[in-house]
Formats: sequence, structure tokens, C-alpha cells
Amino acid sequence: MKNTLLLPELREYLATNKAAAIRSFCEEGHPAMVADLISSLKPDEVWRVLLHTSEERRAEIFAHLPTDIQVEVSSRLNRGELARLLTEMSPDDRVDLFKQFPEEHQEMILPALAQAEREDLRRLASFPEGTAGSVMTSDYATLLPDLTVAEAITRLRQEAPDKETIYYAYVIDENRKLLGLVSLKDLIIARSQALVKDIMEQDIVYVNADDDQEEAARKIEQYDLIALPVVNRDGMLIGIITHDDAFDIIVQEQTEDIEKLMAIGGAHEPRVYLSTSAWE
Amino acid sequence: MKNTLLLPELREYLATNKAAAIRSFCEEGHPAMVADLISSLKPDEVWRVLLHTSEERRAEIFAHLPTDIQVEVSSRLNRGELARLLTEMSPDDRVDLFKQFPEEHQEMILPALAQAEREDLRRLASFPEGTAGSVMTSDYATLLPDLTVAEAITRLRQEAPDKETIYYAYVIDENRKLLGLVSLKDLIIARSQALVKDIMEQDIVYVNADDDQEEAARKIEQYDLIALPVVNRDGMLIGIITHDDAFDIIVQEQTEDIEKLMAIGGAHEPRVYLSTSAWE
Repeated sequence: MKNTLLLPELREYLATNKAAAIRSFCEEGHPAMVADLISSLKPDEVWRVLLHTSEERRAEIFAHLPTDIQVEVSSRLNRGELARLLTEMSPDDRVDLFKQFPEEHQEMILPALAQAEREDLRRLASFPEGTAGSVMTSDYATLLPDLTVAEAITRLRQEAPDKETIYYAYVIDENRKLLGLVSLKDLIIARSQALVKDIMEQDIVYVNADDDQEEAARKIEQYDLIALPVVNRDGMLIGIITHDDAFDIIVQEQTEDIEKLMAIGGAHEPRVYLSTSAWE
Repeated sequence: MKNTLLLPELREYLATNKAAAIRSFCEEGHPAMVADLISSLKPDEVWRVLLHTSEERRAEIFAHLPTDIQVEVSSRLNRGELARLLTEMSPDDRVDLFKQFPEEHQEMILPALAQAEREDLRRLASFPEGTAGSVMTSDYATLLPDLTVAEAITRLRQEAPDKETIYYAYVIDENRKLLGLVSLKDLIIARSQALVKDIMEQDIVYVNADDDQEEAARKIEQYDLIALPVVNRDGMLIGIITHDDAFDIIVQEQTEDIEKLMAIGGAHEPRVYLSTSAWE
């Protein structure tokens, strides 16, 4: 972590139009580090910085900004810019932002998205707040049971750039019914001619989309999972919840517990606790 | 998750010595599920169940038992049994259990361990409570910078069965100085003749062993990491902290915050909160 650039320098770069310097600032280090620094800029400055990098990297950094800043920045974009940004974001980050928009803004942006993203967004946004379905993502890798290990690895290699995680691949039948799980670790250890169905774990942990999000997070913690599959009432795989989102859920739920306790205890400044928490 | 076996059935199996049934109970599903069910048994019953499975699986299930039950069960074992159990446990779980033993018990068990485990245990146990060093594990994969991608994958395949995670491999020089990180995802996407040093990420997030454990957990959360490397003052890699341990740290720290708040609010039964928490 050698991102030692300071805010005044970055503003200086913006003022003097040092494009190469801003670009390398955007592209060095973890996107969360970049987001952390630019979140102190004004909304129009944030976007001016982000215009110096690729659309993919821009969306990654953007997704790490605090929600209120995401909303402020995106409210200044034109429909085309916003549609391109949403398209590049991962499905769960995209729906989180989308749900913050006022309803007329939502209606305005939907037609600007490609059909696949639009349908995915509508589907993810349809799950009630607080359910497992409302925090899942649709970016996961699936495999069919009759593939060989070599074929499965080739497939994951091809899909890897677009998937949130390829460390777990979910095995489904032709109706998307969830049959099991293979980890990339299991795949690279196995004989290349073995079949996915013979090495998959069948007795796996999952949640239903309408289960409570806290139940999902608890399972991820209890079973030390990287991701947890989400199924609908017919047992069809419809999403996954990743460990980092489980983390956020727990922090949020515990913060709510603390707020309730503070109210009971007579302290009426829950925001003070929130804003001094390292977890905000 | 089809582990529908109930406690009375399991006790019946024990009473009538149904070895095959107990064995398959131990070996089906996630070790945390097995641990969850047997944690309601008496300590001697817990061990009698665990004797029906392999030493490796036994240690995995054992590590998922609540700490107080681990201590009770292990206090009934003879030195040889306990040494074999500790040897099979992962380094971080092993040291957590070891630190619960009374000092004379610690002195008694150390000579029964092989030199490598003994030294590792002493080293891990030497970090003060609350530091990043006290929650790290020594089970991580490393690579040298001049390996090719193909050589690196072969190496990770060989090491995988013994490592807590192979999804991140840390690149170190001959003095163990931390140079960078390659993810298994990056490796399987890269050309097989590319060099590790050319595809590794250099600008990575890490902590020092004497940093606060909460700072480490916060970095794992902020940067959505599966694991975080821990270095000593000379920048040498000495351990990693995994995402699931970060989860435990946050739950623990927030529970402490809640206990403090309850004390302030005048409620004097913090254990009630603790024991009804889903996170205990």
C-alpha cells in the first residue's frame, strides 16, 4: 500500500489537467483505496477523476464509494453515462445503487440498459429488504454434472474475468436445480478426467431467497464459506451471497442492536456512535 | 444440508455400538454441522463419537466445537491423544486451544509435539492478545517471483491439501520479504509461461504483527479480501489472517461494545445478551 498521494496533490492534478498522473492514481492499488481518498472530493471532482480510467476500473472504484456519495455523483450524470456505469458494476452493487434512486429516476434509467442487465436488475430489486434475495448477486459460476474436471477448469478460466468468485462453482441440472458444489481447490487437485458429479460436494449449505439476510450471513460465518448459494422455492439456484457482503450485514445488524440499546439506555445520539465507528 | 440425525439417535448408536452409522454421521456434511450437533453431548460422548472417524476429519470437527467444550474434551485426553489431535488441527485453531490450557498443562503437552509444530505453536502463542499476530495462521501458500505460471499452479496443487487457502499465494524473496500477491484466479487466466513476478499485484494490503486485530479485520472488510498477510518489522511474511477469522473478531469486538453500553445503561446482565446472540 504505497498510495501516498494526498488530496491537495490530486486537486492540483485536476486543476492543471495532469491526465497521466490522475490515470495512474486511479489504476494503482486496490480500488477501495482509491475510493477512500476521492470520497473527500466534491461530487463533480469525483467524476472528473474517474473519467481518467477505463469504464471497468471506474465502476470498481465507484462501487467502493459510500452510498450517499454514489447517489450524489450519479444524480449528476446524463442517462447514457449512468447506464454505462451501471452496466459495468457488479449486479449486487448495481441493484444497491438503483434502489437508492427516486422512482421516476429508476423508470428513466431502465430503458437505457441492455435487456439482460435490465431484467437482472428488475429481478434483484424485487426481493424485499432484509431478505437473502435482496443481498445476493447474480454473478456466479455454474457447471453441469457431466463435465470432466479438465472441461470444468477451462470453462471457469473463460468465465473468470466476469465472475465475482470462481473459487466455488455451483453444479446445477438443466433446470438450474442446485445439485452441489465444487471448489476450484478440489478441481485443481482432482484427476483431469474425473467427472464433476463424482467430485462435487452434495450435502451443501444454502438459503432460500426469502430467508432473513442475517440467517444467510450467520451461515457464511458458521461454515467459514466464501459464498453461499441462494435458491427459490423450487430449489433452483438464483444467486449467491459473498463473504464480504455477509460481513456488511453483520456490522449493520449489530449497529442496529447497539442503536436499540442506546435508545433503551437513554442516550439519544445513535448517529454519534455510528459516525465514530470504524465500520461505518 | 440433509443431516437430519437427532441427538437421541446418535446416543442410541453410541449405546449399541453402531460404528458404521456413527462413522457416516461424522463424515457427511460440513464439519461445523457435525460439531453443532455433538456439542450437546457430554464431553466423553463427544470424544467417543469422534473416535469413529479419521484423525484429520476428527480435528476439523473438533475445531468447530465451542472453546469451552474443546477445553473440557481435551482435558480428558491422554498426552498422546492430545498431541495427535493438536498436530492435525490448523495452526490458528491449535494455538487458540493451547492458550486455554493451564500453564502446567501447556508445559506437559509441548514435548509431545513434533519439533515443527512445537516451534510454530510457541511462535504463534507469543503474540499478545488483541494483536494481528495473535489471530494469524501459519498455513499459507508462498511462491518465488521467478516461477512460471505453470510451475506455480503445480506447486499450489501439491500444497493445496495442507493449506488453509490457496486462492491467494504470497510472493516472497529468499529472505521471506513480502513482494506481492497472486490469486489463483489470476494464475489460471494467465499464459502458462508468464512469470509470477510479472503478473503479481505489488501494491497490496497487509498488516504488521503488532497492529491491532481490529485494524486487520477492518482491512479485510474494507478491501473485500479472502486473507490478509501479516509481516514483522522487517517486512518478512510471518502469517495470514483469513476472512472467517476477521468475521469472528468483528463479532467479538462489537459484542464488547454492546456489553459496555449495557453497563452504561444500567443493565447488569451482559451474559444474557451474549447467550441469546446468534453469534455466540
